[in-house]
Amino acid sequence: MVQSHTGITEKEPCMEAESDYVVGVDIGATNLRIALADASGAILEKYSTSTAETRDPGLVVNLIREGVDRMLTQRSMPRAALRAIAAGAPGITDVDAGVVIATSYLLGWRDVPLRDLLESAFGVPTAVDNDVNLAALGESWAGTGQGVRDFVFLAIGTGIGAGIVLNNHLFHGMGWTAGEIGYMLVPGAPDEPTEQDAPGALENLAGGEGIRNQWLRAWNPAKTALPRDLTATGIFDAATRDGDPLAQTILQQTARTLAYAIYNMSLVLSCPLFVLGGSVGLHPALCEAAWAILHQRKARALPEIKRSMLGPDAQLFGATRLALSLDQKAGVPTAR
Amino acid sequence: MVQSHTGITEKEPCMEAESDYVVGVDIGATNLRIALADASGAILEKYSTSTAETRDPGLVVNLIREGVDRMLTQRSMPRAALRAIAAGAPGITDVDAGVVIATSYLLGWRDVPLRDLLESAFGVPTAVDNDVNLAALGESWAGTGQGVRDFVFLAIGTGIGAGIVLNNHLFHGMGWTAGEIGYMLVPGAPDEPTEQDAPGALENLAGGEGIRNQWLRAWNPAKTALPRDLTATGIFDAATRDGDPLAQTILQQTARTLAYAIYNMSLVLSCPLFVLGGSVGLHPALCEAAWAILHQRKARALPEIKRSMLGPDAQLFGATRLALSLDQKAGVPTAR
Repeated sequence: MVQSHTGITEKEPCMEAESDYVVGVDIGATNLRIALADASGAILEKYSTSTAETRDPGLVVNLIREGVDRMLTQRSMPRAALRAIAAGAPGITDVDAGVVIATSYLLGWRDVPLRDLLESAFGVPTAVDNDVNLAALGESWAGTGQGVRDFVFLAIGTGIGAGIVLNNHLFHGMGWTAGEIGYMLVPGAPDEPTEQDAPGALENLAGGEGIRNQWLRAWNPAKTALPRDLTATGIFDAATRDGDPLAQTILQQTARTLAYAIYNMSLVLSCPLFVLGGSVGLHPALCEAAWAILHQRKARALPEIKRSMLGPDAQLFGATRLALSLDQKAGVPTAR
Repeated sequence: MVQSHTGITEKEPCMEAESDYVVGVDIGATNLRIALADASGAILEKYSTSTAETRDPGLVVNLIREGVDRMLTQRSMPRAALRAIAAGAPGITDVDAGVVIATSYLLGWRDVPLRDLLESAFGVPTAVDNDVNLAALGESWAGTGQGVRDFVFLAIGTGIGAGIVLNNHLFHGMGWTAGEIGYMLVPGAPDEPTEQDAPGALENLAGGEGIRNQWLRAWNPAKTALPRDLTATGIFDAATRDGDPLAQTILQQTARTLAYAIYNMSLVLSCPLFVLGGSVGLHPALCEAAWAILHQRKARALPEIKRSMLGPDAQLFGATRLALSLDQKAGVPTAR
């Protein structure tokens, strides 16, 4: 008989230390992704499923359990081989209490005790955090932020959020909302207060939907040969591939707004690196254009802007890294 | 014979522990202020002198030595009673190296090894930091920031700068420029890059000179009975005391810009408190108007805005607190 981390007494699984596993979970409004990693941090299995019809926290936890069980079966491993689990949710998360305080309307969670739910389901040490924060942790561990003490990960998709790493640790702030920069007020932003759950000023200018809306407003068959119905990345593709002038204008506007936001954050944090992620943020043309605009400024030290190395896997890596930090036996590998 | 903290062997001063002193210094472009405090943190003597004609770092250190000697003589104490010294300079400061990297043109310092200069002059442990950072430390120790884990001190005078306290410690950032928000880009700011030593966009809108310039541009004898030549605080006084409509417009514009800057910083840092200091920042009407504008926004948690309790003494308190932290014998009193 052994005593597990949660104090639950269970049968000795008769396993070697190298067969210990941790699980990292990335909960999204449309997709759930799970990684199974060994104690060295190597990700052995990935699993994903749709959450489009499953908003209830209890049902999401059931989906996670189902996914983990499948991966363990795949590896012919018992549940007891699981040492720790960490999950990221797309909302403001009180890391100390293990509670997701609020997500966007897509998931619609309010005060969900996610850590307790997962701990009950798996009986192993569990941690939860905001998804963008976990992406920053992932980049710090195994991505573009490796070896950089202080940096900011910027997730630009439909919304815009930042994960802040200071002194090699995630910085959450006293209100657990550090990096919620989607509401940042930059030149060009309307300065009227917006409703609490409406997209923020910065998102309206530089988020995926905001970019699309600007394209729709500017679109005119006399000015572009491109179709009216384009996504943000479709517009950026057209700007670079076809040199379409209207698409180039939208790209430059977006890059300018992004450069302002990065500049403002760098004035506050004095950090040398901003890592761009998220479906829009990963576009090479946006990164390049924002860098060029930022570096026109004459300032003492302007930060670098680089794209995420981990891409859509950043959150999953971060969740895995967080789970590893809970597994005292594994220690914390500095790289995968 | 005793060994001092710097390793210099000196004569046993035959004193009791309670007669140990530390010195805090606030170096300004026009004034030098010095505080002599006992080991409990009580400030016993203050001294000030003009630095208007004394820009050379060596001469400034001589002025400091002169001031300290006078205060010690006043108390009939020998130099050996001095345990530590800390000084704040109005410029970017590498705290680890003890070097003032750059101040504004008023002082004109570049790469001044201030810590070494002071250590040579006094032979006691010495620390240096940026003046606004020290003001934040002062507020944390004995002012409006007492008991608040994370907060921002905003110094608004001719320029605008922030001192950031995170986890009860000063946050400097990797480039030592954390909080240099005078260049922040908010709605209404011209977004063209400015020259490196020119006032920043935020300073042009909400700094003392910027406010004055806006007043001069808006001034028209048909619109106001007030004189053309007014300072920022004179304009704010007239707005509140006389209800002058043009002065009220300038006050509201400034408060709006300040509220934007505070909002942007609070999105990054998620901290519950902003403390206003500096000659302009201490004006009650500005604090009140900025608070009202900020709290019109519908956001999860908006920070408080309060005026500095320590006023112009904040830096001096911070320098004293830093000196106390160097004096191992004294420990670090949590309040004065």
